[in-house]
Amino acid sequence: MPKHTLGTEELEPLFNPRSIAVIGASNIWSKWGFSTYASVLDGFGGKVYPINNQEDEVLGQKAYKRVSDVPEDEPVDLAIFVIPSVAVPSVMEDCVKKGVRAGVIISAGFAEIGEEGKRLQDEVLAIARKGAIRFTGPNCMGFWSASIDLKAFMFPLPVKKGPIAFVSQGGNVGSAVLTMGYERGVGFHRYVSCGCAADIQIEDYIEYFGRDPEVKVILAYIEGLEDGTRFIEKVKAVSAEKPVIALKPGRTPPGVRAITSHSGAIAGSSDLYDSAFKKAGVIRVYTTDELLDVAIGFLTQPLPKGNGVAIITPGGSYGVISADACASLGLEIVDLAPETIAEFDKIFPPRWSKGNPVDPAGNRDFIAYMQAPELLLKLPEIDSMVFMGFDSFANFSAVFATISNDLAGSLKKIFSDFSRLVPEEGVNTESIKETSWMEELIGKIVEVFFSFFGTSDMSEVAEFTKRQVSSSIISRLRPKLEKQLSNVVRSFEEDSVENIGERFGKVFDPLLQVMLLNWVEIYGKPVITTSFNGQAAVLTEMGHYAYPFAEQAIFTLSKLLEYKKYLDSLRDLS
Amino acid sequence: MPKHTLGTEELEPLFNPRSIAVIGASNIWSKWGFSTYASVLDGFGGKVYPINNQEDEVLGQKAYKRVSDVPEDEPVDLAIFVIPSVAVPSVMEDCVKKGVRAGVIISAGFAEIGEEGKRLQDEVLAIARKGAIRFTGPNCMGFWSASIDLKAFMFPLPVKKGPIAFVSQGGNVGSAVLTMGYERGVGFHRYVSCGCAADIQIEDYIEYFGRDPEVKVILAYIEGLEDGTRFIEKVKAVSAEKPVIALKPGRTPPGVRAITSHSGAIAGSSDLYDSAFKKAGVIRVYTTDELLDVAIGFLTQPLPKGNGVAIITPGGSYGVISADACASLGLEIVDLAPETIAEFDKIFPPRWSKGNPVDPAGNRDFIAYMQAPELLLKLPEIDSMVFMGFDSFANFSAVFATISNDLAGSLKKIFSDFSRLVPEEGVNTESIKETSWMEELIGKIVEVFFSFFGTSDMSEVAEFTKRQVSSSIISRLRPKLEKQLSNVVRSFEEDSVENIGERFGKVFDPLLQVMLLNWVEIYGKPVITTSFNGQAAVLTEMGHYAYPFAEQAIFTLSKLLEYKKYLDSLRDLS
Repeated sequence: MPKHTLGTEELEPLFNPRSIAVIGASNIWSKWGFSTYASVLDGFGGKVYPINNQEDEVLGQKAYKRVSDVPEDEPVDLAIFVIPSVAVPSVMEDCVKKGVRAGVIISAGFAEIGEEGKRLQDEVLAIARKGAIRFTGPNCMGFWSASIDLKAFMFPLPVKKGPIAFVSQGGNVGSAVLTMGYERGVGFHRYVSCGCAADIQIEDYIEYFGRDPEVKVILAYIEGLEDGTRFIEKVKAVSAEKPVIALKPGRTPPGVRAITSHSGAIAGSSDLYDSAFKKAGVIRVYTTDELLDVAIGFLTQPLPKGNGVAIITPGGSYGVISADACASLGLEIVDLAPETIAEFDKIFPPRWSKGNPVDPAGNRDFIAYMQAPELLLKLPEIDSMVFMGFDSFANFSAVFATISNDLAGSLKKIFSDFSRLVPEEGVNTESIKETSWMEELIGKIVEVFFSFFGTSDMSEVAEFTKRQVSSSIISRLRPKLEKQLSNVVRSFEEDSVENIGERFGKVFDPLLQVMLLNWVEIYGKPVITTSFNGQAAVLTEMGHYAYPFAEQAIFTLSKLLEYKKYLDSLRDLS
Repeated sequence: MPKHTLGTEELEPLFNPRSIAVIGASNIWSKWGFSTYASVLDGFGGKVYPINNQEDEVLGQKAYKRVSDVPEDEPVDLAIFVIPSVAVPSVMEDCVKKGVRAGVIISAGFAEIGEEGKRLQDEVLAIARKGAIRFTGPNCMGFWSASIDLKAFMFPLPVKKGPIAFVSQGGNVGSAVLTMGYERGVGFHRYVSCGCAADIQIEDYIEYFGRDPEVKVILAYIEGLEDGTRFIEKVKAVSAEKPVIALKPGRTPPGVRAITSHSGAIAGSSDLYDSAFKKAGVIRVYTTDELLDVAIGFLTQPLPKGNGVAIITPGGSYGVISADACASLGLEIVDLAPETIAEFDKIFPPRWSKGNPVDPAGNRDFIAYMQAPELLLKLPEIDSMVFMGFDSFANFSAVFATISNDLAGSLKKIFSDFSRLVPEEGVNTESIKETSWMEELIGKIVEVFFSFFGTSDMSEVAEFTKRQVSSSIISRLRPKLEKQLSNVVRSFEEDSVENIGERFGKVFDPLLQVMLLNWVEIYGKPVITTSFNGQAAVLTEMGHYAYPFAEQAIFTLSKLLEYKKYLDSLRDLS
């Protein structure tokens, strides 16, 4: 059957239906029709019709035998099929009769099982085309649409709203990425498990996502494409505007065989896909984790202009591992000029690494550690920075506070001054113009933090605060910062000593993040951070993410650079 | 200076001191001497002496100016140095005078900074040798000893007790592995950050760990070895008895340069290390994550006899990714014989994958999924199994229970029967002989679970329960299972509907784990599981761990096989 050229508007009834029929919705928990219906009910606010030819009521809602039994004046935009495959053609006919505009065929038993299934699939496609119904699947797990909070999944999945769109030719990989995203605080605007993709092709989804201004990054899990040329043509137009990141398995003969048995797709050689992706401007990744790692990079960082990297590390072994990672991914650890080394000699003890990676070797003067990035970012030969061990200081202060009464007392005083400083309306309204409380508060916090981490000269701290956390920075990042700080204030009470340190982290972390965001904005270069101890990270509301280790951060950086080079090559051609 | 041959007993005062002096212990929170002292106090129950030549008291404890000022009848076994490097020689002299038996030099500024530092280090070593003091460091982050709950770290770190021993030539990598272990429920018996390793060498620690019956798996982060021949000789003796897993960076020239600047070690070529590790029977890994992944594999699985793998997957895309992973790591996805396919045809719907990876393609009859492993494990050509999507079912039941009153009611009934069944003494004592309550309870839970996941024929369920969860299995695994089940009972109350599903998971998860442990025991083959949605996993008290994805599970499997082949090669030689 010839491929249909798709207008963006044709996918609207799929992703933004006003009403839905769940065909096969059931009271019996052991059926997919139960869990699918449950998933749809969990969020979507529009009308949902259970369709079941044996039950009169499903979970207390009147059920119809057929979609066409739904009253004439109640239109059904979307039909979700959770019935045996053999029944799909006649039900699709009924959907055409009812005027349904889009479908999701979750049912399996089509092209993936061989010739017979393929015939059934073609039959369904012909009926749908006749009725101008566009559909996802068959043999898929469903989809998510953030704009109407619709989880049209075959079982409940956690999902967060956000700027990513994702098409997956595998339901398990898809739901894993969604779940991991939920855990990492990374959200999706659209997600679709496309299954056998009988009607709408992977490149159609990507084209649709490309035109949606809510979508900032596009992900794809691709087992095989039906028409590589069509894919390249359509995706090329999208990737010139926003990044498209793809995971493509089938690098080995057993992988290729498994693809045939799974999605029935023609896997093709891995090299062939490399070349197609290159033409289409698609960024290829190699593991499920990397899909999200790289997406977060694109969401939080600018593109680097070249391959020169500076690394700041809290310890030598992290520096070693990151040097290996850069070198094996074509990034250059830039040699430092003697002037730069001389500048670091002034702020670090003699034992510092005297080169890149920059390692102050356990220097306890944290203010120097926070001054170091600017000494590097200002250099034209440095295109990006990996700033390591940035996250998770709260643990230290928590343990210290339980040991030292002095420290606990100092921290407590800050917090009580803190709650006094913040104006009442600052806590409750979204639009205060007054920022002096934030400046004063930040001054206090920065002071205790640096004294805590070894700075004794308080004039240095004052100078640092003035430069790094000036009112211009505060006003630029005001809404986000204010929200963070107010959130901490809102939960203020006399706290146990154990909680003091943790609370300190909650106040201090956004300040560190403000500095970072500020550097990124001033220098227009990526500054990618890693956590101190390999902890799993969460994307904060400020827009900061700390990768667990150098490996993920540097892989991501290499992919940002790859995309930048691709965009440059387009400009050179034009 | 010639290397000292070390008797196991010589490391006893380091890892099992009765009393400790913290030299440089301080009230000033901005000094490492504060955080180190705080860390030692957080656990260790023996006598701790703060030594400070300016403060009379540290955190309320009488401080001594010098170690030798500690009263004569109070011996000091271990001295922890947190003072400037130049002061270390004279203080070491004082330690000799006092009769200190072991030391940890956290202070930096020795061999890693060049010639001058190396001279200082040699001076310290000579003094220590004279006094028969063995020491760790300098330029290190300290160590952990589970036997006396001693965290001799330069700052507080979370750590769990367990069967791993770990020597790290990098403090950051070391503390990251400890922290990750804590988060994953994986514990350590010993950990040491060896820094410049002036006295005790990496191979000395490995030898010592090798002789400790508490240690089951040994990890090492190695930047460079001083004497490769000595390493091979000593480690070879250990690796014949227990696995030694090493992360060795320096695969690229920038990595090698970073090593020189960090630990001052001679990095050597990566190939040279590959060959040395091969001779020593060391399993090499490539990322910090992999150190723990592989360690958990050795702790929870038997060794595979060959490279034949069977994969069971809840969906095709996971199967594809695992097929790629196996093929690229030299594991063979065994082709299934027609008889085996015929056996699966009986339990799976016609759309199943009809090969390995075995994918029931969304079959809702979970009992078949749980029967599948034995159909494969019994085959002689299958040496190990990856059983995917095994973890985290609780989420489904939680969401379903909120939607269906029927389901919530059924689950509630189980739980109330449950609390009635368990004998009062079963909840409170460690030694009940009666197991019939467990059998009855398990029967009920299994029944609801399978009906929940699509099994309608209850005679099948009864048969399954009898075979898989028979009293022989229960009695074999009784202490662990009983503890798990009793824990759930202990927290029983009338629960909100949302919690019902979660509680169900807590009861059901250990049962699934019992089946797994049972298969591993019966067939003597690794059965490695992965979670359903890429979730970060925790090693359970039952000894079960679900890897986030196929990649980690299969990498681990390949390393178990590598070790098995190494052991076989030793046997062939003898």
